[in-house]
Amino acid sequence: MKQDLDALMSQRDLDAAVVTGSVYNNPSMYYMTNGARLSGGILVKRRGQEPVLLHSPIERDEAAKSGLATIDIAEFDYAALRRASESDLEASVKFYRKIFDRLELAGRVAFYGKVEQGASFALLTALDQALDGVTIVGEYENDLFDAARATKDPAEVTRLRRVGQATGAVMREMIDFMRGHAVARRSHDGAEVELLVKSDGTPLTVGDVKRFGWSRLLANELEDPEGMIFAIGRDAGVPHSHGEAEDPICLGRSIVFDFYPREMGGGYFHDMTRTFCLGYAPPEVQKVYDDVYACFEQVVAALEPDAPTRRYEALTCDIFEAQGHNTHRKDHSVQEGYVHWLGHGVGLKLHERPGFGLSPANQDTLRPGSVITIEPGLYYPSQGFGVRIEDTIYLDEGGEFHSLTEFEKKLVVEL
Amino acid sequence: MKQDLDALMSQRDLDAAVVTGSVYNNPSMYYMTNGARLSGGILVKRRGQEPVLLHSPIERDEAAKSGLATIDIAEFDYAALRRASESDLEASVKFYRKIFDRLELAGRVAFYGKVEQGASFALLTALDQALDGVTIVGEYENDLFDAARATKDPAEVTRLRRVGQATGAVMREMIDFMRGHAVARRSHDGAEVELLVKSDGTPLTVGDVKRFGWSRLLANELEDPEGMIFAIGRDAGVPHSHGEAEDPICLGRSIVFDFYPREMGGGYFHDMTRTFCLGYAPPEVQKVYDDVYACFEQVVAALEPDAPTRRYEALTCDIFEAQGHNTHRKDHSVQEGYVHWLGHGVGLKLHERPGFGLSPANQDTLRPGSVITIEPGLYYPSQGFGVRIEDTIYLDEGGEFHSLTEFEKKLVVEL
Repeated sequence: MKQDLDALMSQRDLDAAVVTGSVYNNPSMYYMTNGARLSGGILVKRRGQEPVLLHSPIERDEAAKSGLATIDIAEFDYAALRRASESDLEASVKFYRKIFDRLELAGRVAFYGKVEQGASFALLTALDQALDGVTIVGEYENDLFDAARATKDPAEVTRLRRVGQATGAVMREMIDFMRGHAVARRSHDGAEVELLVKSDGTPLTVGDVKRFGWSRLLANELEDPEGMIFAIGRDAGVPHSHGEAEDPICLGRSIVFDFYPREMGGGYFHDMTRTFCLGYAPPEVQKVYDDVYACFEQVVAALEPDAPTRRYEALTCDIFEAQGHNTHRKDHSVQEGYVHWLGHGVGLKLHERPGFGLSPANQDTLRPGSVITIEPGLYYPSQGFGVRIEDTIYLDEGGEFHSLTEFEKKLVVEL
Repeated sequence: MKQDLDALMSQRDLDAAVVTGSVYNNPSMYYMTNGARLSGGILVKRRGQEPVLLHSPIERDEAAKSGLATIDIAEFDYAALRRASESDLEASVKFYRKIFDRLELAGRVAFYGKVEQGASFALLTALDQALDGVTIVGEYENDLFDAARATKDPAEVTRLRRVGQATGAVMREMIDFMRGHAVARRSHDGAEVELLVKSDGTPLTVGDVKRFGWSRLLANELEDPEGMIFAIGRDAGVPHSHGEAEDPICLGRSIVFDFYPREMGGGYFHDMTRTFCLGYAPPEVQKVYDDVYACFEQVVAALEPDAPTRRYEALTCDIFEAQGHNTHRKDHSVQEGYVHWLGHGVGLKLHERPGFGLSPANQDTLRPGSVITIEPGLYYPSQGFGVRIEDTIYLDEGGEFHSLTEFEKKLVVEL
């Protein structure tokens, strides 16, 4: 949580944290600037002090909306520095020197934010050499803001809960949208199949369903920045296949619908997956669905506060192997069976801490304020199907786990 | 253009370019992977060779859609490297060493892509030290992909043109949406004003207009990733004020509507601004509008192939100063008058090359394939208004300039 920042900075021996870049798709900047709509900026958090936001003069109104102390960067007159320099890099070093002096930054100063890495590497290397009494730090793994964001405060949970409710409601509307279409027999890919058709008799497609979903997301002030997965049949057997827009919606085939919208304009994600068969399920799909469902239920029932996440990754492998499936634990290049990780944290990033690696190096635990996915799945692309079930789950301060995903788990959608 | 990459690599003395990160909001990765929906990956372009895409096994289908040669990173077995290492950073260095060996990368290898800068700084510093015969390069300004993307090939122009047409069409629908509302007299902020009202008698708000616009963008397969500017009155006087969702739409006030949607799911932007007054314009706004319009027309008429962009920034300052306005050239911290730059390139980034800085260090020119904005504006927040007019303009191979923005320039919207 944000309130942990000073303690986390002490643990990491950091005197200051500097975040740069726009707030868009830059979770650390968004986190620290409270949703202000800034196309750029420099956020400085000194240990034991309130953060300060440096902003462009033309963004002064938006900067003020952050509620933070602000400094207009016009004060540092980059244009004059540029005129007195041989290169942009030289001018930028002078510019940062003035900022470091103004804010009395010294010691170990770490940089954060999603920006162009080549430019950043050039600048940070130059600053490290140029600034006396300053060591520029780059944290490789589980950085300061990853660690802070790994647990959510009550205001964040309120937003995450609303996104979860709206996401489930939109998924339901999308299912009902499909159910509102007639079934027809058509030949497709050389076989006679049953599929959904529109009023003009043409097949309903994956693209039609996604477009309807986007319009319903919009009505709920949500967006789909990374593109939902709606993958049918063999595509459902490859976890990150997004589905083909032109594919018809056939009955009796597994549909993996992985849905991870975000609050409009940046903000908090939800992440949920359901696997459906329209009309009826082939027995081999039902069997694998039952295996995944049993695994999901066992893993969720076993969740305990303060437990290491890798315990649940191992438990998932235990369960699937006992059911007779191959897993990534037995074969790291597995493509049939359990081929990906059990879950991940969810927040301003779709994938954040904690992680669920099996390695003893993974020291992440479930803590009060953790918001995680649990998403076991089994994939049989060679047999033309895959199954995944996923909820987003919150561990509260009292040690209780709550699903933020409101949607039943049922394979067959009756038409 | 992409076809220039080898020549640009030679100029920069680069043996290889490595792009990392997801394709989302990461223009260099999107550019090189042809719109494949990859949540992560490593793209390697060796000078004189076709690019190679390294991908996660669960994204093999999406990777194949790039049309590039692909390598599944399961081959490098990160998990085994991690077990044999003390830290993630150590394991990552071993992982990249295997990749560099496999692809025979040596010499000057530059990294690109929008990623977390702290982690990147740690990794690139470690790679530079660990890999013999390799120098890790970070380009600070106008990097390889900025330079390639500064001119667009015909396929890109086709997409940019379509986005421009659709953006103009949606702006028109939004204007018509406002015109479809009745006018009423109400008290607002302590004054009696005329404003637009909904059928239930409550004021139409900026938020209502934006929501309607989002639904129309969606219907045109566009998105609004950075949030349109729809700023009224005093807010219109601060270039990057986005406008207040709860503000009513009052007659006779300047509305700066800066609209910069993007193809759905990432892709090409358009950028256009119109300034409107509903019903009637106060004389002081009309006067400033006429000044900005005259400036826009004179600058566009003066555009020439191969001319330095800074010539037009200077011309804009000349025109506005002759009209009696203050400019950033006379006062770098100006807040009333001409307070920002004339334009910028537009493409996979909303702001890309060429730039329009006044400094002699700005060597950017207008070239065949350039797609730029021309957006002079005058801002008087203390008088409660601002004006900006902006088109996106393309310079073709034959030396002709074409506006990609299809929308008339007229201050008063008749009700």
